[in-house]
Amino acid sequence: MAEGNEKVVLHGMWGSPYVKRVELALKIKGIPFEYVEEDLSNKSPLLLQYNPVHKKVPVLVHNGKPMCESLVILEYIDETWPNLGPQLLPKDPYQRAQVRFWASYIQELLDKLGKLITNDKEAQKKAIEEIYEKQKILEDGMKEFFFPTGQPEVSVEKLGILEIMVAVTLGAFKIQEEVFGVKVIDPEKNPLLFSWVNALIELPVVKEIAPPREKVIALFEFLLQRGIKL
Amino acid sequence: MAEGNEKVVLHGMWGSPYVKRVELALKIKGIPFEYVEEDLSNKSPLLLQYNPVHKKVPVLVHNGKPMCESLVILEYIDETWPNLGPQLLPKDPYQRAQVRFWASYIQELLDKLGKLITNDKEAQKKAIEEIYEKQKILEDGMKEFFFPTGQPEVSVEKLGILEIMVAVTLGAFKIQEEVFGVKVIDPEKNPLLFSWVNALIELPVVKEIAPPREKVIALFEFLLQRGIKL
Repeated sequence: MAEGNEKVVLHGMWGSPYVKRVELALKIKGIPFEYVEEDLSNKSPLLLQYNPVHKKVPVLVHNGKPMCESLVILEYIDETWPNLGPQLLPKDPYQRAQVRFWASYIQELLDKLGKLITNDKEAQKKAIEEIYEKQKILEDGMKEFFFPTGQPEVSVEKLGILEIMVAVTLGAFKIQEEVFGVKVIDPEKNPLLFSWVNALIELPVVKEIAPPREKVIALFEFLLQRGIKL
Repeated sequence: MAEGNEKVVLHGMWGSPYVKRVELALKIKGIPFEYVEEDLSNKSPLLLQYNPVHKKVPVLVHNGKPMCESLVILEYIDETWPNLGPQLLPKDPYQRAQVRFWASYIQELLDKLGKLITNDKEAQKKAIEEIYEKQKILEDGMKEFFFPTGQPEVSVEKLGILEIMVAVTLGAFKIQEEVFGVKVIDPEKNPLLFSWVNALIELPVVKEIAPPREKVIALFEFLLQRGIKL
């Protein structure tokens, strides 16, 4: 697969964590792709044609065939190029079930992180408590299912859907801490998660897909001012 | 697989559409299983042990290994018993992506259906308009991807995840119409969906998992009185 006549196009938006999941998956697998930046305030006819249901990015177009929803696309990538780069999902059905369960859990964590974007300090405080609670459950789950030693193992050869979800969801935590003035990952409360995220964001492939710091700060500040929750 | 030493236990609640998805999948595949009814007002220690994260049904326990979340369980069933009964997901990765996309869309439709459970007639009217809109999009998607003739094809040999989702989400539409006094599927607006659902609920395997009519009526009336939204 991934031969000369394959055409892979990703329609995205630079700041979208959903898009970043797909971008990171393609880079981990080593799949060459074209990237089309969409203006979400003025959606292109092509985006509306490819995703008439949700009208959202990411859309992945493989040899002319469009598909939507980041987790659906990640499974497609793994199934279509099973032998290119690392497997994004393990082979064993029970382990796959665990990965899918926790991937959807990390999605819930992302939804909670959006609640930090508020000028209401009380609401923000409540949100951060909920985030810590969810992170603790995630940390315990990771210890039970994936890192029985209590230490995360991170290497380029072993990046999968969970690593993609964690890196993209929490990868900007330092910027969030700066803009929102709260500790987004507490190393005392969640040491495994803290070192896992820190190891992931140091990987060159993760650095490559991280949006520029200044743009992320400006985006968060814009959302804060406008009171827009992600 | 599914040999004499396999043990499959489903922890459920009789009225839960999430549980019914798993029950229907197991029956379609012909996998023998034990069923354990959980009292959600007094959760059993076993349920809390098996699903400490969400504390919800369904939980499927296969040879002692528990897993949660209905769509995760459906994928597990299909991967673990690929040759038993029909395939729940097609083989082709692009078709799989379409099925997963629409399965998650039907989940959104289920969420909207919960909004019918209200005594606020204005809110109910708004909910039904949104439901029709979502059903139209589903109908159009089904025509495009799965039923190019515009007619649904229904047979026991071809039941998959989409049929499971549709049968369980809309299978009680006649009771809902009776209790809520609104047309839940409009055959004028969505003729394909209407005949698809009607064909599905006539299948013996679907009838087998349908909860008793009287209990469903009583449950909906109870929820209406209490103002509880599903």
